[in-house]
Amino acid sequence: MTEEQPAGTQGNTQARQRLLESALRLFTIKGYATTTVREIVAAAGVSKPVLYYYFGSKEGIYLELMQEPLGRFEAMLLEMFRETGGARGRIITLLDRIFQLVLTEVGVTRLMYAMYYGPPQGAPYFDFEAYHEKIVENVRFLVEQGIADGEFQSGNPDDMAWALVGAFNVAMEEQLCDRPPRLDRQGLLRILDLIMAGFEPQRNKETERC
Amino acid sequence: MTEEQPAGTQGNTQARQRLLESALRLFTIKGYATTTVREIVAAAGVSKPVLYYYFGSKEGIYLELMQEPLGRFEAMLLEMFRETGGARGRIITLLDRIFQLVLTEVGVTRLMYAMYYGPPQGAPYFDFEAYHEKIVENVRFLVEQGIADGEFQSGNPDDMAWALVGAFNVAMEEQLCDRPPRLDRQGLLRILDLIMAGFEPQRNKETERC
Repeated sequence: MTEEQPAGTQGNTQARQRLLESALRLFTIKGYATTTVREIVAAAGVSKPVLYYYFGSKEGIYLELMQEPLGRFEAMLLEMFRETGGARGRIITLLDRIFQLVLTEVGVTRLMYAMYYGPPQGAPYFDFEAYHEKIVENVRFLVEQGIADGEFQSGNPDDMAWALVGAFNVAMEEQLCDRPPRLDRQGLLRILDLIMAGFEPQRNKETERC
Repeated sequence: MTEEQPAGTQGNTQARQRLLESALRLFTIKGYATTTVREIVAAAGVSKPVLYYYFGSKEGIYLELMQEPLGRFEAMLLEMFRETGGARGRIITLLDRIFQLVLTEVGVTRLMYAMYYGPPQGAPYFDFEAYHEKIVENVRFLVEQGIADGEFQSGNPDDMAWALVGAFNVAMEEQLCDRPPRLDRQGLLRILDLIMAGFEPQRNKETERC
């Protein structure tokens, strides 16, 4: 396909990147519905064929914005899956890495929230829930492992997963505000620790000093 | 001001209610920016002067939608403030009551999320954060009381409050989805219990049987 690249953009992946950034900014500020291809290419300083070459359409550039972090997210989950160690440490690592991905993609995450909660605006379907469900599933899986290994006391793994995902969500949403976030990465890690301290089996105080 | 009520609406607070419901539905589906006064009054089956009489403008009906639950929310917080009892019970009651308010106002809450996370759309300023900050503040106040009373072990009251508010948030956000929520009121109460179990002082197993 590189033969069909429009004149003046040979090997110019910077143009592609500028288009993504311009689209993200315009969709966020103006909304998806009222943003035009003309505005996106003008903001990126390229011609319309460059956008069509890389993304096909406005729908295409929108879907690329939404899907690109999903690939990295899923690769990270796969990698986490191969790790060994205690449930507590793996839960911390998992949610910490996803949080760091959010920090590098604050703009895209904010647009996801706008599209998920906002009016449909004629945007093509994107399964936003996939992200959230995968987080919940993976955390629950690790909680179940922790219970099976006796690292956590027995309990409802769904509830335990929700408690942890709730802390993650609130920390993520703090990053999406216009004002400075009141929770940072260290804060999230402290809160996850605090919640999991409650999951630990009651310390078996052997009456060794009697 | 009742003398200035437009003809045909004397004492007809149903028209006011229909206008609010129509505006909420249109702002949610179409977005605030593209919804017109003409569409709102047509959906409500009233004439423009009726909307102007009750709300003054599109901005006015929007602000009324956003502010009306805030009054009930603040009244509830004041009432909670007068209650006595342990921190644990008061935290459960507080978040349970706010959750029930959300359940009765799912549509308004969804519009709040759309306006908060979505593009500005030219809507008048509304301090959405006020709701969230008041929840965080009140929960932290009760956590501090619990620590002072020895009901909770000492710890960072901010982190403890965030853990609880995170669970509340995730349960609230589950109600705003298009699919059936995976968490209900009982689920939220179980998760709050689970988190607070971790706040309790380590049981002081007196070596009474030695």
